[in-house]
Amino acid sequence: MKQDTKQDTKQDMKQDTASAATSTPTVQAGILGAAGYTGGELLRLLAHHPRVQVRSVASSTWPDQPVHRAHPHLRGCSDLVFTRELDVGDLDCVFLAGGHGVAMAQVPELLRRRPHLRLIDLSGDFRLHDPDAYPRWYDREHTAPELLSRFVYGLPELDRAAVSGAQLVANPGCFATACALALAPLARAGLTGTVHVTAMTGSSGSGAQPSATTHHPTRATDLHAYKPLRHQHVPEIEQLLDRVAGKPSLRVALVPVSAPLVRGIYAVAQLELPDGWNAERVRAAFASTYAGCAFVRLLDTTPSLNAIVGSNFCDVFSSVEGRRVVIIAALDNLVKGAAGQAIQNLNVMLGWNETTGLLFPGLHP
Amino acid sequence: MKQDTKQDTKQDMKQDTASAATSTPTVQAGILGAAGYTGGELLRLLAHHPRVQVRSVASSTWPDQPVHRAHPHLRGCSDLVFTRELDVGDLDCVFLAGGHGVAMAQVPELLRRRPHLRLIDLSGDFRLHDPDAYPRWYDREHTAPELLSRFVYGLPELDRAAVSGAQLVANPGCFATACALALAPLARAGLTGTVHVTAMTGSSGSGAQPSATTHHPTRATDLHAYKPLRHQHVPEIEQLLDRVAGKPSLRVALVPVSAPLVRGIYAVAQLELPDGWNAERVRAAFASTYAGCAFVRLLDTTPSLNAIVGSNFCDVFSSVEGRRVVIIAALDNLVKGAAGQAIQNLNVMLGWNETTGLLFPGLHP
Amino acid sequence: MKQDTKQDTKQDMKQDTASAATSTPTVQAGILGAAGYTGGELLRLLAHHPRVQVRSVASSTWPDQPVHRAHPHLRGCSDLVFTRELDVGDLDCVFLAGGHGVAMAQVPELLRRRPHLRLIDLSGDFRLHDPDAYPRWYDREHTAPELLSRFVYGLPELDRAAVSGAQLVANPGCFATACALALAPLARAGLTGTVHVTAMTGSSGSGAQPSATTHHPTRATDLHAYKPLRHQHVPEIEQLLDRVAGKPSLRVALVPVSAPLVRGIYAVAQLELPDGWNAERVRAAFASTYAGCAFVRLLDTTPSLNAIVGSNFCDVFSSVEGRRVVIIAALDNLVKGAAGQAIQNLNVMLGWNETTGLLFPGLHP
Amino acid sequence: MKQDTKQDTKQDMKQDTASAATSTPTVQAGILGAAGYTGGELLRLLAHHPRVQVRSVASSTWPDQPVHRAHPHLRGCSDLVFTRELDVGDLDCVFLAGGHGVAMAQVPELLRRRPHLRLIDLSGDFRLHDPDAYPRWYDREHTAPELLSRFVYGLPELDRAAVSGAQLVANPGCFATACALALAPLARAGLTGTVHVTAMTGSSGSGAQPSATTHHPTRATDLHAYKPLRHQHVPEIEQLLDRVAGKPSLRVALVPVSAPLVRGIYAVAQLELPDGWNAERVRAAFASTYAGCAFVRLLDTTPSLNAIVGSNFCDVFSSVEGRRVVIIAALDNLVKGAAGQAIQNLNVMLGWNETTGLLFPGLHP
Repeated sequence: MKQDTKQDTKQDMKQDTASAATSTPTVQAGILGAAGYTGGELLRLLAHHPRVQVRSVASSTWPDQPVHRAHPHLRGCSDLVFTRELDVGDLDCVFLAGGHGVAMAQVPELLRRRPHLRLIDLSGDFRLHDPDAYPRWYDREHTAPELLSRFVYGLPELDRAAVSGAQLVANPGCFATACALALAPLARAGLTGTVHVTAMTGSSGSGAQPSATTHHPTRATDLHAYKPLRHQHVPEIEQLLDRVAGKPSLRVALVPVSAPLVRGIYAVAQLELPDGWNAERVRAAFASTYAGCAFVRLLDTTPSLNAIVGSNFCDVFSSVEGRRVVIIAALDNLVKGAAGQAIQNLNVMLGWNETTGLLFPGLHP
Repeated sequence: MKQDTKQDTKQDMKQDTASAATSTPTVQAGILGAAGYTGGELLRLLAHHPRVQVRSVASSTWPDQPVHRAHPHLRGCSDLVFTRELDVGDLDCVFLAGGHGVAMAQVPELLRRRPHLRLIDLSGDFRLHDPDAYPRWYDREHTAPELLSRFVYGLPELDRAAVSGAQLVANPGCFATACALALAPLARAGLTGTVHVTAMTGSSGSGAQPSATTHHPTRATDLHAYKPLRHQHVPEIEQLLDRVAGKPSLRVALVPVSAPLVRGIYAVAQLELPDGWNAERVRAAFASTYAGCAFVRLLDTTPSLNAIVGSNFCDVFSSVEGRRVVIIAALDNLVKGAAGQAIQNLNVMLGWNETTGLLFPGLHP
Repeated sequence: MKQDTKQDTKQDMKQDTASAATSTPTVQAGILGAAGYTGGELLRLLAHHPRVQVRSVASSTWPDQPVHRAHPHLRGCSDLVFTRELDVGDLDCVFLAGGHGVAMAQVPELLRRRPHLRLIDLSGDFRLHDPDAYPRWYDREHTAPELLSRFVYGLPELDRAAVSGAQLVANPGCFATACALALAPLARAGLTGTVHVTAMTGSSGSGAQPSATTHHPTRATDLHAYKPLRHQHVPEIEQLLDRVAGKPSLRVALVPVSAPLVRGIYAVAQLELPDGWNAERVRAAFASTYAGCAFVRLLDTTPSLNAIVGSNFCDVFSSVEGRRVVIIAALDNLVKGAAGQAIQNLNVMLGWNETTGLLFPGLHP
Repeated sequence: MKQDTKQDTKQDMKQDTASAATSTPTVQAGILGAAGYTGGELLRLLAHHPRVQVRSVASSTWPDQPVHRAHPHLRGCSDLVFTRELDVGDLDCVFLAGGHGVAMAQVPELLRRRPHLRLIDLSGDFRLHDPDAYPRWYDREHTAPELLSRFVYGLPELDRAAVSGAQLVANPGCFATACALALAPLARAGLTGTVHVTAMTGSSGSGAQPSATTHHPTRATDLHAYKPLRHQHVPEIEQLLDRVAGKPSLRVALVPVSAPLVRGIYAVAQLELPDGWNAERVRAAFASTYAGCAFVRLLDTTPSLNAIVGSNFCDVFSSVEGRRVVIIAALDNLVKGAAGQAIQNLNVMLGWNETTGLLFPGLHP
């Protein structure tokens, strides 16, 4: 039960670390595209993971530079040096943290060189199972469509069994994680119809390259919607909801909004409940779906980004007024929405405790 | 036509000022609750209004202090001094800028002393015509219910005729202005059903008194929904949409979200269109509703707060995908959502050009 | 006297506008580099200037586009269209708002075509009188050194006589304006020695082009010093202080700091007072230097950026403890530090009231 | 040597945790004033400390509430509950995290009940050794002056020997830590005279109680100096510099500036070097003072707050131009400036590796 899990977490945090650190074999990991924000976040989080050692970090922009050139906070915490190519020699697993299009170009070669390498792709390249969907949402052809069916979509709270033992995992998008966690309990309960979602995002989601949308003089005081109803995370959300429901499920009308903050996804979903539903039943659907899920915190009050920033938690809230239901999900786009979830997936893939190295609070204030 | 209006605005801006300034009688205005943010904004805007002279500014917290004690930006721009009580002697009009509950306590006495005084109330006290609605949404009894029917709800773009010549005007709330301008064209066209709105707001909407929700260490990096589906601006929006439609119209499911910015309302509305509607018809509904409305700018791209902050403009955008329609409205909560609209109402009440003193751009970046 | 000036300002604001607007001939102005932030600010401010009409706006990046493409806040307030080349036909004056290097390339040709054209250069190209200084501080050769001596350095509060009647004016830098206004009274009084200045700046000072230093994810929560002791505004400050003192005067050790805000310069200067100085004498030096200067507000309490943002004011404060003196100057880098001061210079050049079109409060909060 | 230390840190981080976690006895800790920001930060950091277990958390404002009521990020990471009074039963050490005045009221009683209890006071109550100094800087009488001489001032990098084995430690202020680390190498080398410091601070330094100076609408876009030359951290800096120098040393003229960010101290110090000093000698002074200090990172480029936020590092930079030297120190006010340093002190007091539980990177971006 959730409550029990919680009461033990504090002890877990230290024991986990202790027992793991003393058990011998650790996993050797590499990171491709390690100079970006998700690469930096992987390095930050894996620095404290008791069973993973990062051995090789590749970056085409900072070859032969210490990692703290791209990630100044790692100065004194890591003596890794970027290389142009990944040294896959002894690696057990690789995180692909480059942008969309990079993974599909690299994965075939990686698997040719080490057929049993475990891969976790943080881009959108292997999330959609339908080969026709990729060009429609990503405006380019997929160059490795034969691999699509081999990748498992890795949102452990909703499909832990599929991730467990998988070799190749597609890590969900940040909006997708928030929306899927907000809607899966209702999809699982059989609800259908259109959900209206407005979801705010921090600027770190746009990556480390300066651009007009992340220019501080305009971004700092702005709200700006983009790709209304056309964001590329929509098909992966619907694909997952269908899978969770076991049939065609909720459709998602998503309006993403750039907000003047650095980290965070804050998704507000609204829909109308069918007959027979009330607040109690909604609450029960969420409680049963997330029983035993350490990283989903069900709240009685509206979530705040500053309770989750820096952590792997996703805070979820629901409120019912008559037929109307509002669901809000809040997470850190770089942690539960990217690097943290990628590590969580690795934990599950390898049969470890899902929370290994990840059960830390965020930064507040 | 809108286009013509636009081409003349620049000339208008200067000529307006010139002709107005040379014509003799100006209106003498007073401000109650003048030390708050909307009070400061009224002073800032009226400093350049060619036909209004502010004569008396009352504040119970800063009596006998120059206005720049509460409004440091006015130092050198105003030599007014706060008084504890308003000096209503020769006033033609009074802006009530105190919080909810203040206006209903003061209006009866003001009208007793000067029966023909024009009043513009910026609080929620006189917005709802139904006497039973006030206690339901404001958690207190109304102390002057007999005056409710004498107040006109002042959103000039939607009900200019009612405002014109009115003596007593209830100035709309900030969320209400954004939502009503976003939805009125569809209400006017007869649409019904539930609209889902997520609306972000800046911290200045909470007023000048420090509180937990405006504490910088937590607010600066946060998003936080509040009063989901229960915000007190909902009934005034629905009341206005019904009036515009001439029948029961759209119902509004509103989730307000506190955002880490100082100024701005950014409302994202979603609904499903009935048969017979498409993008063209939506566009036409907006174009016809706002023809000749200088302060509503219809955009082809998603709005940005930083295009309207500091100005009296409301930028409105709509997008249609099949049955789905997204409407976004962006405005400055202290200007078009409060003080600017109050002055716009005064202009209309007195038969002046609606834009007098208000046709200035905001601050960008 | 200052006090009198202040008491009349409110009346002045409206009368100025009225009388100016009715007097016939207005000045025809052009703007080069009009798509940048200072260009946008010139357009915003000149929209309300009663005696200046902007006729031509040139931008190489947005030719044939309406100005609101670059300056979205001007939509509905201006129907100007950018042209690739300035249409100098009937212009009386041109503001050069391109970056460093642009002005010196354009000024010779502009003067060839219209020898009596008044020019106000907002870049650093013509600020330093010593031809050897430019390459030392700007890392390039000056291509029009013969014009250096014809330009007057335009900081009206400190050298109004020189600006009055000038044809060519070099508008000071933003750090330079703040530092010069903070230090001139002590330089004028004969003080020498080194002043230590730490000066924070908003991101808008870096211009409209995205770059690593204005990337929101890192800028939003950062402070970062740059060019310590080597900023190119130092020589213009020292040149002006020497001129004000009539002899070699204070030397300035300046550390600029990028701060997580959009607008504002906040300069904190410290030095040791010589014998015979105390708080009273410091206060008197400031009061006498800035008597009658509407835009310099001498404060008794430490300044706040949010009292000046959006306005042409510079707030100045001094504090003495024994031998130690702290002087703080706060201004808006795009207004008093750029576009506002450029218009102030034009007012003085043409013999108008210095405050024409500029005596408005900023935006607060 | 520093370089060696660095190369080992990554290994250290995990081994430290591993070996510590397996060694048996842990220290039982309590926190007084645990609901404030430094209390929350102690809980966040100690959650991962392998040798400390927090047993009791006292808060007068949240008695009987789970810690996540005050610290929402700790939900799911801690099952501690606030009590009104500290349960000192088996505690080995107590962190006093209440405001100024609280510690001196509580310490005598705590020591009466458990004479060997180790105390680390994060307030200013026991920092100044001179009994006359406290009322002068803190505007109240000291109620336990007899204890002043028993407290050791705990800035381990500068006085590790004194902290080692101490029972009672006064944890330095946030400005004091930054200024002392910036200036100690020059003080140790015998420099005297006045140093001019301008130091920016984030809003979390003002604590969890809302106030006018932390009101988001004004703080978010502001810079505002306060207590120029009169901040209460000045005497502790000078006391420490004198101790490091072994004689009267540098005097500090400090201007604190409230900046629009949540976390961080960014101190910019300027002074003139005496004869015989140059860049090389300055660099050597810093290198020798901080050899082996894992938490002081000496940089070749100007520091950025976002490289240290969330971590226990202090980044230090120096630059010399002729006689002029600029030193910049950047740290997180809640970590190295408060809770992190308190834990570092505990590590040293107990003879553990100074970095135990503290060698983690901050959050970037």
